[in-house]
Amino acid sequence: MEKIFSYADLFRFSKSVFEKIGCSNLDADAAAKSLLSADLRGVDSHGVARLIGYVRLWEAGRANTSPQMKIIHETPSTGVVDGDRGLGLVVAPFAMQLAIDKAKAVGSGWVSVQNSNHFGIAGHHAMMALADDMIGIAMTNASALVAPTFSTQRMLGTNPIAVAIPAGEEQPFVADFATTTAANGKLEILQRKNQPVPYGWVQKKDGEASTNANELKEGGALLPLGGDREHGSHKGYMLGSIVDIFSGILSGANFGPWVPPFPAYLQMPENMPGKGIGHFFGAMRIDAFRPADDFKSNMDQWIREFKKAKTIDGIPSVIIPGEPEVEMETKRRDEGIPLVESVVEDLLNLSERFSVELGGH
Amino acid sequence: MEKIFSYADLFRFSKSVFEKIGCSNLDADAAAKSLLSADLRGVDSHGVARLIGYVRLWEAGRANTSPQMKIIHETPSTGVVDGDRGLGLVVAPFAMQLAIDKAKAVGSGWVSVQNSNHFGIAGHHAMMALADDMIGIAMTNASALVAPTFSTQRMLGTNPIAVAIPAGEEQPFVADFATTTAANGKLEILQRKNQPVPYGWVQKKDGEASTNANELKEGGALLPLGGDREHGSHKGYMLGSIVDIFSGILSGANFGPWVPPFPAYLQMPENMPGKGIGHFFGAMRIDAFRPADDFKSNMDQWIREFKKAKTIDGIPSVIIPGEPEVEMETKRRDEGIPLVESVVEDLLNLSERFSVELGGH
Repeated sequence: MEKIFSYADLFRFSKSVFEKIGCSNLDADAAAKSLLSADLRGVDSHGVARLIGYVRLWEAGRANTSPQMKIIHETPSTGVVDGDRGLGLVVAPFAMQLAIDKAKAVGSGWVSVQNSNHFGIAGHHAMMALADDMIGIAMTNASALVAPTFSTQRMLGTNPIAVAIPAGEEQPFVADFATTTAANGKLEILQRKNQPVPYGWVQKKDGEASTNANELKEGGALLPLGGDREHGSHKGYMLGSIVDIFSGILSGANFGPWVPPFPAYLQMPENMPGKGIGHFFGAMRIDAFRPADDFKSNMDQWIREFKKAKTIDGIPSVIIPGEPEVEMETKRRDEGIPLVESVVEDLLNLSERFSVELGGH
Repeated sequence: MEKIFSYADLFRFSKSVFEKIGCSNLDADAAAKSLLSADLRGVDSHGVARLIGYVRLWEAGRANTSPQMKIIHETPSTGVVDGDRGLGLVVAPFAMQLAIDKAKAVGSGWVSVQNSNHFGIAGHHAMMALADDMIGIAMTNASALVAPTFSTQRMLGTNPIAVAIPAGEEQPFVADFATTTAANGKLEILQRKNQPVPYGWVQKKDGEASTNANELKEGGALLPLGGDREHGSHKGYMLGSIVDIFSGILSGANFGPWVPPFPAYLQMPENMPGKGIGHFFGAMRIDAFRPADDFKSNMDQWIREFKKAKTIDGIPSVIIPGEPEVEMETKRRDEGIPLVESVVEDLLNLSERFSVELGGH
């Protein structure tokens, strides 16, 4: 059973909960915006369903809700931010804004972040650049669930990459994807339904191919984009590694198997070499390359040409990255956001605990 | 039957041929270096085997061997280069050097290139940044062979991405990969052997899955990394698109289905919206983020940890991106570069035509 909530209600509720756990008004606003952007865009695994997870991180002393974020190193086009153990939902917009400011000044800005926590969906942060006619880039490392090609050991997170590119009359191009065959959220949906997953998503503890959605709980691993060596899993492994190094090593955060997990009940890795989890952000001003109008007109041409490309039977048109999410956002702003029962229960618990009205259902 | 040639002989020969078709001494040197780097690293499809292809481009009037390369737009951290229809083998190092110079000045440099031709292997250009303790990035678009997810039409090239990252005592991390399940070169090898390809590499003209290595000749298409929607081909499609937009649209080159083909006998696309093919290069100074020694020591730790990760039976250790290529280069510098008969024939034809001694076999 799903219940429908308005964006306004969920936003107000989430913001209040963030304030109750110590966020300033401004930080709570940024956190709720980051969080709810996932629900609006249809990435239900990363939205308000995770609010309780962030509360638990704070409870466990693993997230600082009043961080003093600092730029600890910079050049005209680069910088490193220390997130002071803040919520990634707050640290990410701060760092992305720094990248945008640098792009305004010298054409592009690149910011690596240490000492942060999970930042929600990468796409939300990358899209901050669009309003200033910039290309936005966001990525983050995450706790290890993914085995490199030929390995049985979890060494990398699902390490997503988002790239947002402005267009003219068309919607912006927004790619946002985990560097695995399938995001963990998709696996969880099939787990709940007790259904098998396609070969190429997970492997058993010993590295054997598997269709068992519960393989991760039994010591198995997620697989890099490609699935196996024959289908290019070494490329997914390389992509995940690049995200890990840009986010974790350029900043001085943790990396590889040492990235702290999101669930507060999981133990922290031993002998961690860095601080918190790492992110990486980029912004490039379009007119640092060409007049923005020329670029956007070519982007419109690109999008229209791809939309009218021939398709296989039964498919109306090629999908432009970001387009389904815009449709979803329009629909959900209009008709509300459906939440499954277990999420509603979590929210009701938070509502009672913090005396914040959930409302709206 | 293969014949073995020394690097020195092939380099001298290639450089002479480039001079014969009009390259200056310096440009011929850069072109031969770019080209031969593929043979050294074991990417035989992109090396001296293509020398005759570049000659044919020049013959067809599609490559300018004495280009006046120009920076047509720039900011402190970005720039656009007009390659003046030059060989990509020469234009790419020029543009990458500009990215490196900008990184020296302001922390990072990002250069998009229009009006170029094929640049050989992306990794060679990305690796130029390593000597200055920088991360190097190189990508290029290419003529359309790849169908987006759910499409039957070729809209994107194999659009490779290379990222080179310095380490300390360990070899640098160098990723260099096409954004398709399998590079076209691998397909050609199975074609020659008359062997089937795995599902997920190519599709038939109507979009049906196929194991026929000759599918491309029959109107089929290469598939984006992932292979099909269930295995994340939309992610490969997004990656290929990002490379296309950064290389083609940021610079004012051609993009999507309008990128000119490498083989000189193929017709040029109609109504081309830009100039030549496009590349994109980036350089980030490590110490624009952290002291280079700290970064490199963490990179060594990353590499060593991944190398000792548990593996499936029969695999000695996880492969670090770039490591097999270093081994190959050492071996081939030492023992020579093996060339198949058809390539040797092409070289002998060039040798006769331009009165340049091939030697060495």
